[in-house]
Amino acid sequence: MAIAVSPLAVPLPELPPLAGVRLGAAAAGIRYKNRTDLVMAEMDAGTTAAGVFTSSKCPGAPVDWCRAVLPAGKARALVVNAGNANVFTGRAGLEATKATAGAAADLVGCSPKQIFLASTGVIGEVLPHEKLTTALPALHAALREDGWEEAARGIMTTDTFPKASTRTAEIGGAEVRITGIAKGSGMIAPDMATMLCFIFTDAKIPATAMQQRLAKGVDASFNCTTVDSDTSTSDTVLLFATGKARHPRVSAEGGAVLKDFARALNEVLLDLALQVIRDGEGAGKLVRIDVSGAVSAKSAKRVAMSIANSPLVKTAIAGEDANWGRIVMAVGKAGEPADRDRVSVAVGGVWMARDGGVVPGYDEAPVVAHMKGREVEIAVDLGLGRGRATAWTCDLTHGYIDINGSYRS
Amino acid sequence: MAIAVSPLAVPLPELPPLAGVRLGAAAAGIRYKNRTDLVMAEMDAGTTAAGVFTSSKCPGAPVDWCRAVLPAGKARALVVNAGNANVFTGRAGLEATKATAGAAADLVGCSPKQIFLASTGVIGEVLPHEKLTTALPALHAALREDGWEEAARGIMTTDTFPKASTRTAEIGGAEVRITGIAKGSGMIAPDMATMLCFIFTDAKIPATAMQQRLAKGVDASFNCTTVDSDTSTSDTVLLFATGKARHPRVSAEGGAVLKDFARALNEVLLDLALQVIRDGEGAGKLVRIDVSGAVSAKSAKRVAMSIANSPLVKTAIAGEDANWGRIVMAVGKAGEPADRDRVSVAVGGVWMARDGGVVPGYDEAPVVAHMKGREVEIAVDLGLGRGRATAWTCDLTHGYIDINGSYRS
Repeated sequence: MAIAVSPLAVPLPELPPLAGVRLGAAAAGIRYKNRTDLVMAEMDAGTTAAGVFTSSKCPGAPVDWCRAVLPAGKARALVVNAGNANVFTGRAGLEATKATAGAAADLVGCSPKQIFLASTGVIGEVLPHEKLTTALPALHAALREDGWEEAARGIMTTDTFPKASTRTAEIGGAEVRITGIAKGSGMIAPDMATMLCFIFTDAKIPATAMQQRLAKGVDASFNCTTVDSDTSTSDTVLLFATGKARHPRVSAEGGAVLKDFARALNEVLLDLALQVIRDGEGAGKLVRIDVSGAVSAKSAKRVAMSIANSPLVKTAIAGEDANWGRIVMAVGKAGEPADRDRVSVAVGGVWMARDGGVVPGYDEAPVVAHMKGREVEIAVDLGLGRGRATAWTCDLTHGYIDINGSYRS
Repeated sequence: MAIAVSPLAVPLPELPPLAGVRLGAAAAGIRYKNRTDLVMAEMDAGTTAAGVFTSSKCPGAPVDWCRAVLPAGKARALVVNAGNANVFTGRAGLEATKATAGAAADLVGCSPKQIFLASTGVIGEVLPHEKLTTALPALHAALREDGWEEAARGIMTTDTFPKASTRTAEIGGAEVRITGIAKGSGMIAPDMATMLCFIFTDAKIPATAMQQRLAKGVDASFNCTTVDSDTSTSDTVLLFATGKARHPRVSAEGGAVLKDFARALNEVLLDLALQVIRDGEGAGKLVRIDVSGAVSAKSAKRVAMSIANSPLVKTAIAGEDANWGRIVMAVGKAGEPADRDRVSVAVGGVWMARDGGVVPGYDEAPVVAHMKGREVEIAVDLGLGRGRATAWTCDLTHGYIDINGSYRS
């Protein structure tokens, strides 16, 4: 089945070299024909690492691998394959990660514990890791400072466009760069959408300080997005700092000197998270949901995600119907404190329901026009407190059924 | 949009009269043309009542009404309308319930507190209750002991078939009858599917004993089913006992004398719950999910519902694809104790994955044949403990998108 490029796609930004990182992609023939499916990034010695992984109780073998090596906080290379997720493959899965990391470590000249791995694709098929290890030497020899687009394309499964984001930030007066690539929400023939995100910076930041910032940033970006409420077994966000930029020393705790870095990191994370949603399976509209007036930020986030995950809200948006009744339903089922008679709902900035009832004679024309656009904004005020949160999703369309309801080919 | 009858529909069973209940339906013209949309059931004096309602924090006005009158445990009539849910209608919603209950109480000759109400349909539009009160006198005058089918049809919104179930049970050697009708999972132009279920028995059971049995029965039936994970603002299950049957006295606590009654009640509840799923929006297949080996029954139920609510599992079933990788994914995201390397998955009785890996050379032919049928069975064993649970759902098809993604008409 040919999948057209998402109507919500954005162009790849210009991605300048980042000191200490060389990347590339190769066609290892794991599952796809005539395309790259193996990506490697080599980082200079001294690179620190941070990572955030799926909360699934059935994670893939590469997630297990990364979790095991992350505590040391040191990285020299990243190896990613597309087409086989190496999930639910038992002992063979563990062996595949060991063999791949070992081969990459030999090429780089480091301990296997400094190699990070990720795989997405079909579940339950043994990863033919000899295809990876056979392709790695030539790939390693060809790594380049300007290999960013190649890498962004090589990690795609059936993503419809490559995803990248870059920002600069200032640490103690010196400029550093943060560049990330991501894949996700495209369909892989038999499997769930999986999300991978790899971020690189030339800043010199201890792993502990990075881990803290990354976890916070992921909570406010990827963890506020949903395509279909299904959590992948392979979700991975990794952050690598090569330490090539010249700026004052950053302590293990990080602290105020990282304020601008955190701002730029959060921007990159959110940019990439929204690109994943823009490539959500069958997506025709990008939906932003702002919840205010909740008893706490946590409560607001749960209400926002309840709306973002509601099939009835999402199908209504696909139908360009500003169906605030379904939004009220999703507020009601969230299990969070809510008082029906204080709930207000706006679509496209127009308050349609306020204080427990429809707003008499509200102007429907701007709402109808807003719903026809590619970006839909929903606001809900619970009228209880000061808790706020924002969630992002896409609509639920026939495209989603087409992509996920077809036989494995 | 014309909706064809669900391919999973079952015929209406024969519904004999039940001592102490007279029913009927009328066309009040609330929303639909050329069909009945107002149902009344009158019960003899002495009827006790029990009820279970939506957990939504934004419930409809009729749910508020029933919750307020239920503690007295006495019922003389039930009035139900289709086409307008009387939800999110503020003070007007409360007035509509008062006016309707008042009119019905005058006809029956009882307190309004013995009138139970339910409404489903569009949200946020004021219920034109004068249409109800105008139609009630003629409807009341025409109530009949054999009005069951009429009542089952009159509460439908866009359900594609009427739903009813009847059983007999024995209390202290005497036979009693339990008959229930339900509606749900059909679409109402702008709104979510809503579920209503009304059960009647000629047994003589105190309200407290009934309430306990009903809550338990609903937990094991309706609360184990899902079409799309969206919880309605109007979900209501009511049980009325007219006390016309002759059997030994039942205490307020109920006790062992109600064992066979509970068995029959549970059968009626499950039968009706599965009829609702059989009429799930766009449903092509009825899916049963058995989870065993969980650390507790509660944990097993959460895992079963995580599978039942997964859009990726449901679209795979629509595509007749026994995609056990997605089932493993849904186990992993449930947030319950699970050990990837102990999980086993069967479809149609064939174990495809066992102890964390695919079963080498399992026979796919019977699985493929099973997936082509109308009823699909999934079994998951977590290998941890003795907790078991069963959930029921339907597949997620283009029909769901068609029904819910269209403009309000």
